[in-house]
Amino acid sequence: ESRLPGYATHQVGVAGAVLDESNGKVLVVQDKNKTKNAWKFPGGLSDPGENIGVTAVREVFEETGVRAEFRSLLSIRQQHNHPGAFGMSDMYLICRLIPLTYDINFCTQECLRCDWMEVAELAKTSDTTPITSRIARLLLHGLEHGFHTVDLTMEELPAVYSGMFYQLYHRQLPQ
Amino acid sequence: ESRLPGYATHQVGVAGAVLDESNGKVLVVQDKNKTKNAWKFPGGLSDPGENIGVTAVREVFEETGVRAEFRSLLSIRQQHNHPGAFGMSDMYLICRLIPLTYDINFCTQECLRCDWMEVAELAKTSDTTPITSRIARLLLHGLEHGFHTVDLTMEELPAVYSGMFYQLYHRQLPQ
Repeated sequence: ESRLPGYATHQVGVAGAVLDESNGKVLVVQDKNKTKNAWKFPGGLSDPGENIGVTAVREVFEETGVRAEFRSLLSIRQQHNHPGAFGMSDMYLICRLIPLTYDINFCTQECLRCDWMEVAELAKTSDTTPITSRIARLLLHGLEHGFHTVDLTMEELPAVYSGMFYQLYHRQLPQ
Repeated sequence: ESRLPGYATHQVGVAGAVLDESNGKVLVVQDKNKTKNAWKFPGGLSDPGENIGVTAVREVFEETGVRAEFRSLLSIRQQHNHPGAFGMSDMYLICRLIPLTYDINFCTQECLRCDWMEVAELAKTSDTTPITSRIARLLLHGLEHGFHTVDLTMEELPAVYSGMFYQLYHRQLPQ
C-alpha cells in the first residue's frame, strides 16, 4: 500500500544564500567534521509543514546568528539514495535572502568557520562545492544584471479545497 | 526516530507541458470525475527513485499516448496537508517538454478529454487552474522571447560519496 498516492518519498533541505547587495558579500560557513573544508551556504532540513523560505531563514539564524529575509528561489537539486536519508530521495532548494543583521554568532556545534565573503571570490575559489560555485555565479549575474534574471519569485495562492495557501515559484512575468 | 534527518516529508508530483513550437499548441487534458472540467497538463506522482524529467515523460505518455522529451523545469509548487497525501506535504514540479509524436490516444480511465490547444488560448481561458494559466503565460513568453527567459535547465553532476549522479536545475548562465 506504500505505492498509493500519498507516500512521501523525499526529504526537503533548504540553504540560504544571504547576499548583501551593498558590498557584494555573501554569508558562508564551513561544516565541522568534514575532511574537505569547503565553503557553503548555511542550511538544513525542513520541519514538517514548514515552507521553503521559512526553513532558509531559520537555518541561517540557527547556524550563523544572522537575521535574514526571503527573496527568491534560485536552484533545485534532486538526489536519490541520499546517504543522509536512509535510501530515500532528497530535494534540496537554494534560496536568495537579504540580511537584516550583520553580526556573526555562529553555532560551534555545526560550523568550523563562518564569514561574509565576496561573491566574486566564492565564484572563483576551489574551496567550495559545485552547487555553491554555481549559485555564486548566479548571484554575481544578479548583482550585475538585476535579480530578475536569476530569481524564481514566490506567489501565494489559495487552495480551493483546504482553505490553506500554497506557494508557487516561477520566473516573474512582465505585468 | 521518524524526526531524525532522513524522514521523508514530501511526495513529489510532476506535470509535463508539451509545447509544439512549430504551431504554438500545447497538450492539455481534463480529469475525469471533477465537478469543474478544467484544462490542465498531464502529470502524476514520481515513483521512488525516479527523476523529475522521467516522471514527466512517463505520465504524459500514460495519460495521452504522446511521446515527448524533457527540456526544462518551469515552476515549483509547495503545498502542506495535501488532501491526496494523507496530511503530508506535496512538491509539484511543472516541466517543459517537446513532442516526439503527435497522435493522441488518451487514457479513458483518467481523462475525460485530451487535446492540442493554442497556448495563447490556454493563457486566456477561465476553464483552467491558476497554475496552468501561469505556465501558459510562461510558455507564451518563451515562444516570443526565447525559452532561456523562462527555463530552469538541468545539469547532471557526480555525487562524490555515492558515485551516482544528481540533477541540478537553475537558470542557464552565459558561458
